Amino acid sequence: MTETFLGLPASFPEALAEAAALTDRLLDKLLGVPPGPEARVFEAMRYSALAPGKRLRPFLVLASAQLFSVQQRSALQVAAAVELIHAYSLVHDDLPAMDNSDLRRGRPTCHKQFDEATAVLAGDALLTFAFEVLAQEDTHGDPAVRCELVSSLAVAAGGNGMVGGQMFDLLAEKDPTLGLVAITRLQRLKTGALIAFSCEAGAILGKAAPEMRRALRGYAHDLGLAFQIADDLLDVEGSAADIGKPVGSDAAAGKATFVSILGVERARGQAELLVRQAVAHLDLFEKKADLLRQAAQFVIDRRS
Amino acid sequence: MTETFLGLPASFPEALAEAAALTDRLLDKLLGVPPGPEARVFEAMRYSALAPGKRLRPFLVLASAQLFSVQQRSALQVAAAVELIHAYSLVHDDLPAMDNSDLRRGRPTCHKQFDEATAVLAGDALLTFAFEVLAQEDTHGDPAVRCELVSSLAVAAGGNGMVGGQMFDLLAEKDPTLGLVAITRLQRLKTGALIAFSCEAGAILGKAAPEMRRALRGYAHDLGLAFQIADDLLDVEGSAADIGKPVGSDAAAGKATFVSILGVERARGQAELLVRQAVAHLDLFEKKADLLRQAAQFVIDRRS
Repeated sequence: MTETFLGLPASFPEALAEAAALTDRLLDKLLGVPPGPEARVFEAMRYSALAPGKRLRPFLVLASAQLFSVQQRSALQVAAAVELIHAYSLVHDDLPAMDNSDLRRGRPTCHKQFDEATAVLAGDALLTFAFEVLAQEDTHGDPAVRCELVSSLAVAAGGNGMVGGQMFDLLAEKDPTLGLVAITRLQRLKTGALIAFSCEAGAILGKAAPEMRRALRGYAHDLGLAFQIADDLLDVEGSAADIGKPVGSDAAAGKATFVSILGVERARGQAELLVRQAVAHLDLFEKKADLLRQAAQFVIDRRS
Repeated sequence: MTETFLGLPASFPEALAEAAALTDRLLDKLLGVPPGPEARVFEAMRYSALAPGKRLRPFLVLASAQLFSVQQRSALQVAAAVELIHAYSLVHDDLPAMDNSDLRRGRPTCHKQFDEATAVLAGDALLTFAFEVLAQEDTHGDPAVRCELVSSLAVAAGGNGMVGGQMFDLLAEKDPTLGLVAITRLQRLKTGALIAFSCEAGAILGKAAPEMRRALRGYAHDLGLAFQIADDLLDVEGSAADIGKPVGSDAAAGKATFVSILGVERARGQAELLVRQAVAHLDLFEKKADLLRQAAQFVIDRRS
C-alpha cells in the first residue's frame, strides 16, 4: 500500500464533496454483499450507509487528520467507521418504536424500504462493523492507536454518549418544560459526542500533543451545539424539499428545542456565538485549520 | 493490579458456577448506572446482562484461557464482553419485530419490562460496551492482542456471523423445506460464531500456536452444532419450567429444525457424534482440557 497523504481542496464545499466521495468509495468497497440469505442485511446496510448525505462527520475526521499529516488510508478508515456509526444510529432512531420516521435523506427509511426486523439487524451489523474497520491494520500501523480509536468511539457512541442521549431525548420528548441546561446536555450526548470523536480522531491518529487534542475537543463541542441549534432552526424555517424530511415536526410533537426555549432570534445569535467560539479554539493551528473554520460557518449557514 | 491466574474448580458444575459468579461480579462492576435520564438505558442493560443464565460462553472463555495460563483479569474482561454481546442479541431477537417473545430466562423480556425503544437502545449500548471493554488496558497489556480480540469478536458477531445468522433464520422461519446443509450453515452463523470466538479468545489471549487455535476452533464448531441440536430437542421434549420459555414454539411456527429434519432419535445421535468429535479435537491439550470435555457432554445432557 502506498503512503498517500491527505490533500483536501482548500475550499470547503469542494473539500466536503471530496471527503464524501472518498468515504463513499471506501464504504462501497468495505460493504461487499456475501452470497447466501444473509445478503439481505448487507443490502440494507449499503442502502443506509451509502444513502445521499453531507458526510460532515467523515469530513471532520479527514480535516482534523490533515492537521497532523496523517496518511489518507488511515484517516479514511476512521471516516468510514464514524459514518457507519452515524448510519446505524439513523436506522435505529427511525424505527417505529423510536421516532417512527418514514422518510430519511429524501428516501424511505430502512424499515420502510426493507422491514423492521431487517432494519434492527442492519443497524446492529453497521455498529459492529464500525469496530471491525477500526481494528483493521489499514487503520494504523500502531495497534495502540487502533485500540484508542475503538475505545474512544465506543465511549462516544454508547450509553454515556450517543445512545444515552437518544434515551434522554425519548424521555424528554413529551416535556415542553425542559430547560436550556438540560437540552444542552442532551444534545452534547446525542449528537455532540460523535462529532467530538470525529474531530479528536485526527489527533489520535496523529499522536498529537494534549493541547492540540484539547483544542479540537473544544472546537467540536461548540460546533456540535451550533449544529444542533441550526437543526432546530431548520425544523422551523427550512423547506421539506431541502432537508428531505417533514418540517415543523418538533413543534407539532410539543418537543422542547433550542428554538422553543430561546426563540428564533436568540437561538440564531447563540449559534453564531458558538461558531465564533469554535473557531477561536483553532488559533494554535494557524492557517492549517482553515477548512475547519469554514466548516463551522457552513454548519449554521446550511439550508439542509 | 495483582497478577492472578485462573484456577477454576476441576468439576464442571462447580467451574461453570464459578465462571458465572466471576463474570457477573465484573459485569456488575462495569455496568455502573450514571445519574441523569440516561440511567434508564443502563438499568435495562443491567436487567438483561445480569439476568439469570448459565453463562456458558464466559465459561468457555475462561476454560480456554486456562489452557494457556492467561491472567484471570484478562480472561474475565473477554468473558464479560462475550456475555454483553450474547445479552444484546437476546434483547434484540426478542423484540416484537423479530421473535416477539414475552419471556426470557423465566422473566419478562427487556421490551416487556421496560419498553421497545429502551430495549433497542439497551441492545445497542450493550453491543457498543462489549468493544469498549475489550479495548481497555485491563484486557491485555499488548494492544495488538486487544485489537485482535476486537476484530475477531466483530467478525463473529456481525453480518458474516451472528447477525447474518439471525437474518438467515428470519428468512428461513416460514420455510419448512429447509435442508440439513442450510440449517447447519444457519446455526453455524447464528450461534456457532460466538461460541467459536469464546473458545478462540483463550488462544488469542495466550498467543497460542496456530495448531492449538485450530484445535479450539474445531472443538467450538462441533460444540456449537451439538448445542443447537440439544436446543431443538429441548423445544420438543423440555418443560417450560426448566427452560424458562414456552416449549413447542418451533413446531407451532412451522419452523425447520434439526429435529424436524432428522427426527428425535437421529438428532440425538447426531448430537452425540458431534460431542465425541468435539472432544477429539482436545487431545493435544491432554488432561488440561478436562473441563472443556465435561462442557461438551453437559451441552447435550442439560435440561434447560
